[in-house]
Amino acid sequence: MSAPQPTSHNPQPTSHNPQPTLGILGGGQLAQMLALAALPLGVRVTVLEPDPQAPARLCAEHLAAPYTDPQGLARLAGCDAVTLEFENVPLPALAALDGRVPLRPGPGVLARSKHRAREKEALRAAGVGTAPFVTIEEAADLTGALARVGGQGLLKTSELGYDGKGQARVNTDADLGAAWAALGRVPCVLEGLVAFEREVSLAVARTAAGQVAFGPLVENVHRQGILRTSVCRAAPQDTGGRARELARAVAEGWGLEGLLTLEFFELPGGELLVNEVAPRVHNSGHLTQDGGGVSQFEAQVRAVLGLALRDWSPLLPCAMVNVVGVAGPDGQPLHPDWAAIDALPGTRVHLYHKDWRAGRKLGHVNLVAPDEATLHARLRQLEALIP
Amino acid sequence: MSAPQPTSHNPQPTSHNPQPTLGILGGGQLAQMLALAALPLGVRVTVLEPDPQAPARLCAEHLAAPYTDPQGLARLAGCDAVTLEFENVPLPALAALDGRVPLRPGPGVLARSKHRAREKEALRAAGVGTAPFVTIEEAADLTGALARVGGQGLLKTSELGYDGKGQARVNTDADLGAAWAALGRVPCVLEGLVAFEREVSLAVARTAAGQVAFGPLVENVHRQGILRTSVCRAAPQDTGGRARELARAVAEGWGLEGLLTLEFFELPGGELLVNEVAPRVHNSGHLTQDGGGVSQFEAQVRAVLGLALRDWSPLLPCAMVNVVGVAGPDGQPLHPDWAAIDALPGTRVHLYHKDWRAGRKLGHVNLVAPDEATLHARLRQLEALIP
Repeated sequence: MSAPQPTSHNPQPTSHNPQPTLGILGGGQLAQMLALAALPLGVRVTVLEPDPQAPARLCAEHLAAPYTDPQGLARLAGCDAVTLEFENVPLPALAALDGRVPLRPGPGVLARSKHRAREKEALRAAGVGTAPFVTIEEAADLTGALARVGGQGLLKTSELGYDGKGQARVNTDADLGAAWAALGRVPCVLEGLVAFEREVSLAVARTAAGQVAFGPLVENVHRQGILRTSVCRAAPQDTGGRARELARAVAEGWGLEGLLTLEFFELPGGELLVNEVAPRVHNSGHLTQDGGGVSQFEAQVRAVLGLALRDWSPLLPCAMVNVVGVAGPDGQPLHPDWAAIDALPGTRVHLYHKDWRAGRKLGHVNLVAPDEATLHARLRQLEALIP
Repeated sequence: MSAPQPTSHNPQPTSHNPQPTLGILGGGQLAQMLALAALPLGVRVTVLEPDPQAPARLCAEHLAAPYTDPQGLARLAGCDAVTLEFENVPLPALAALDGRVPLRPGPGVLARSKHRAREKEALRAAGVGTAPFVTIEEAADLTGALARVGGQGLLKTSELGYDGKGQARVNTDADLGAAWAALGRVPCVLEGLVAFEREVSLAVARTAAGQVAFGPLVENVHRQGILRTSVCRAAPQDTGGRARELARAVAEGWGLEGLLTLEFFELPGGELLVNEVAPRVHNSGHLTQDGGGVSQFEAQVRAVLGLALRDWSPLLPCAMVNVVGVAGPDGQPLHPDWAAIDALPGTRVHLYHKDWRAGRKLGHVNLVAPDEATLHARLRQLEALIP
């Protein structure tokens, strides 16, 4: 942690220091879990979210209105601070909040993280490596692009992609042209394929006063573009220190107020390249809910409200497996084996109260164990119980 | 755990198995923390509680009506099961729910636990020891009572006492008469003073199908009749096995469905006498929220809804210190040193969103540590930060 004096919550309401209030743009499962973490800190949460069935409505005041609704935004502006659970906040919402309430992370961070090309340029400006990339904005940009990123790549829309959506693998110039057409010829980034050893992630939080704290280094495995499994080992790893250095460089270079998560490729030699930045809690950090200690959700709440921060690495080895809607050959839902999950020691079930839909994130199961060998043995069992 | 097949939740709503719903009588901090634990299990919670500012309203559907309100009770009767956060449920409420919805624990357990004399008789019937006692219902019962319990005792009202209220220490027959008059000559129990080594507690949960699971053995220190500090050591203790045996005897002897907590006196020779039974989660079990694993709140939710149970001893050494409203000599609130609490590693703050009042439980701070020596060193620091 850095030197500045931490500010602290004053949870006892007084005339001078009323109970802190937090506004959230978005009311999905991340907002739900932020609200669940905020409540025990004495914090009241209000979410602005058009979906009347949004998960966060169950544990927060829910303003069921568009993100750009003037009355809804006025209500958020009355909070002590506003944060978000998704990066694509409409510009009119940003404009309506500007100057009325601290939005954390602020427009500067959001402008970078919502746009792949700007994000990569801003990462490099902060001294952080990325995969080779070329921006594709018009047909002329296609020429020679693939060769410049190493001959194989991923074409991704610059904005609005998530969970593997809005991207295509390209191996030839013909692939590239076809993929760009299929993506609607919108602005894209062509990223060179990186032969990475593993994918890891790490979150960093920073208060407006400049206090910085870090989450654990988490190892991630994806399936069909969606996170499947995350693991956090108790033993400190060499990579962790380097990841924290890079995260600090981004947090300080971008003037972060709040929390952001870096997804890295770890190369065979140990070098870390940043794949993506999410200006918020992240699916790979859900395991911090149950490993003993502060969770990523509490860390974001604290950072946004200027409460004292502390590193939030779990005390115990832990892991997470996502519960995503999977259909069988007949199109019917394939459910996890909940009875066996409940019977497996160390499992913690987290469901989001969302209706089943194929490909939809419905929940996750955290796993915690007294030691790493036990964790890994049980993790193999747990993965077999979740389609 | 016992042999019966565990039932398991089916958290995906289908036409045959909709999302489970839980009703709670009472909306205080225990209901609040039950609701916070229920939500991630895919469970919806409705509380019936007259206080419009009740803590549970922030994370559950709140029916702001008296416990005996027919419409409110009808709404609870529509849940899959109903539980409670306090033992003194009015008889008309019990009658209104009877036969319409499973109330867990049921009237049989509640009739025992809300009445000190019946409780002690029922404990003895289950083969569990208590302090010597005499019931005082009329003036004639006073004669010779003190001698029969060993010459020194505590006179307690049979009903409605909690946190040291409704009781008096008596050392002489004159004390006894005066104390009974001061308590309004209501039915009382005179308990013999027990020279105990320490106070411990342990909770047991049991499903309607007969599956039994246990919480950790917790060591408790009281101050002015209110719990001050609870500690759970990671190492198994001899006493734990004996406490689980007694808890199982009570759970099975009383036909428990749900969760109950036993408070014990541990005598110098290791014998355990039951001091009190709470038919619910208990202040001494709050530390299970942060030690890694299932919490007492999740255990109660699971037991009441018939979901699979598992013992819920924390994986890490942990402790809890209550935050109670304390006034200084000038009558002004003395607040905990929140900045120092936030800076102490392993602390987890839990506030109930209640206005300050002297003697009122406002929150608690859990403490978790990688080993026992660290836990105890930090616990001494933590206690110094909370008035």
